[in-house]
Amino acid sequence: MTTDISDEATGAPVSAPARVAVLGAGSWGTTFAAVLADAGSDVRLWGRDPVVVDQINTARRNGKRLPGITLPEGIAATTDAAHALDGAEIVVAAVPSQTARVTLRELRPHVADGAVAVSLMKGVELSTDDRMSTVIADALGLPDDRIAVLSGPNLAREIAEHQPTATVVSSTSEATAARVAAACSTSYFRPYTNSDVVGVELCGAVKNVIAIAVGMAQGRGFGFNTTATVITRGLVEITRLGLALGADARTFPGLAGMGDLMATCASPLSRNHTLGKHIGQGMTLEEAVAATGGTAEGVKSCRSVLHLARTAGVDMPITAGVSAVLNDGLPVAEMARALLSRPQKAEGIV
Amino acid sequence: MTTDISDEATGAPVSAPARVAVLGAGSWGTTFAAVLADAGSDVRLWGRDPVVVDQINTARRNGKRLPGITLPEGIAATTDAAHALDGAEIVVAAVPSQTARVTLRELRPHVADGAVAVSLMKGVELSTDDRMSTVIADALGLPDDRIAVLSGPNLAREIAEHQPTATVVSSTSEATAARVAAACSTSYFRPYTNSDVVGVELCGAVKNVIAIAVGMAQGRGFGFNTTATVITRGLVEITRLGLALGADARTFPGLAGMGDLMATCASPLSRNHTLGKHIGQGMTLEEAVAATGGTAEGVKSCRSVLHLARTAGVDMPITAGVSAVLNDGLPVAEMARALLSRPQKAEGIV
Repeated sequence: MTTDISDEATGAPVSAPARVAVLGAGSWGTTFAAVLADAGSDVRLWGRDPVVVDQINTARRNGKRLPGITLPEGIAATTDAAHALDGAEIVVAAVPSQTARVTLRELRPHVADGAVAVSLMKGVELSTDDRMSTVIADALGLPDDRIAVLSGPNLAREIAEHQPTATVVSSTSEATAARVAAACSTSYFRPYTNSDVVGVELCGAVKNVIAIAVGMAQGRGFGFNTTATVITRGLVEITRLGLALGADARTFPGLAGMGDLMATCASPLSRNHTLGKHIGQGMTLEEAVAATGGTAEGVKSCRSVLHLARTAGVDMPITAGVSAVLNDGLPVAEMARALLSRPQKAEGIV
Repeated sequence: MTTDISDEATGAPVSAPARVAVLGAGSWGTTFAAVLADAGSDVRLWGRDPVVVDQINTARRNGKRLPGITLPEGIAATTDAAHALDGAEIVVAAVPSQTARVTLRELRPHVADGAVAVSLMKGVELSTDDRMSTVIADALGLPDDRIAVLSGPNLAREIAEHQPTATVVSSTSEATAARVAAACSTSYFRPYTNSDVVGVELCGAVKNVIAIAVGMAQGRGFGFNTTATVITRGLVEITRLGLALGADARTFPGLAGMGDLMATCASPLSRNHTLGKHIGQGMTLEEAVAATGGTAEGVKSCRSVLHLARTAGVDMPITAGVSAVLNDGLPVAEMARALLSRPQKAEGIV
């Protein structure tokens, strides 16, 4: 499934800097631009907000999204997408997922011949149930073997602080995955390559739904056992969906599956987790959205994931429970009761 | 791997109460006795301390190990092991792992014909590298098909508070696993059956070593990404060892693997985690043991696990790093550097 891209002789991580365009100056786009710059890559970062772009160029800060972080030299921010994309060998897409198709379609004429695209985006497009790599392929007119997705236990702020972590770079093309991994390998950011794009993207989409379920349990006052049980059984249902859709079973216990799920469910900064907690404490969805300060991604993904699962004939009891609470007004206590009184059975995924 | 023991018609968990002897009135033994009693089983709990035994019988409390918890009716505590074992269909072993062989050997004459034994014990016997089910089989003279092990995200205190959780009951005999599961199934405790005893026990033994590694990272100030990465890559090396020793790959992402590992690594009550944190903050092993208030299980397991791994020809870099810090005085910062500068490679277990 995965490939060694290290220098066999020295064991040192291979670093191969590249000309990279990062599209999107949110917290993850900005952080990943910093990782690339630290890896020696030549990075142009495209953002829409001239204030943010100017601050990055003049003060090496993105105060709106990464307060307190000093960004490295080697990031040139711009509001001009054509300039950002000019000559870029790697194009990193870090724009909002539900509008990515429209955004990227407009930029297509500026993408250099031979460029590869990397998705940092999570989720499933609501109107089509498409994964983000499919949206990118359609919008930029790229073949699958020139698209990679990057995912793992990657809370942006901690990476921006250079805390050690690992990630997965997945592509149907081993060469594309290795090329992207080599462009972003630093002393604190360790990429592993992987060939299971479907599995990696499904993990990224469903984890937010499971994070809501974990938040609900914690909002009701439950602790580490319940949290670990919901995450473990959540991963079982993600795996079940993934296998039905052609993913590789080995992806799910890995960094993009279990690793990302754990980091997302542990972080008090996760909107999905916070929203679930508010609902577990008794708020309605509307009240919880207001208290969380915006809709969490999992609220949107939930219906799409359930739709994919039903089409594939797969049972996802936690996702169905979250959906019933969010969309049909099922009380959280009823959801917990329903999950615990399911027939006893096999631990396995089938 | 696992079996449905529910009532197919109603979907309700099957509960089949039994006569059970629980050996060991520590926090987990006492808590599991309470689960069994709540499941309707007739429980005799053997403890050595007459004060603890008397308090359980008269006040329904074990103030030493589970302060603030009221135990259910239906637990008869005793200091007389022969009385506890008399007529018991299920014998639960919850005694300290390193002295279990001697303790159980003495009780062998009192074990009823046809009884099955259940291990709640974690770890590997230092003198032999034996797993606990092997120790039980030797000491009680029981065949493998009359032994089960129980493991999962099961912090005792949270279960004693009736917080919902799940667990795995593993035995080479499906009937034995189902019999034990049916004796301990309650509205808050959901057992799944499993046939991979080797995998379940290895997870229980190695998790404490990984919990020390997570503590070390957190002691150095690292957050959720690093924690999730260490746990995920820790599970990869547990899986690698397990497969070399004949375990089933599906056990490791399950409740006894990932589930227990997550709960153990998250809990501030875990001695292994706390000890690792002290060392990460700069204490020596001696200082950390003193500050933690006793030696953590992972300190003992570490050498045995590494010995098993070397015999099996398996690479366990996190376990080796923890051992080098604990036993050879390697600075924690050096261990982190060594782990991050390993050759980039495959995410997989091979």
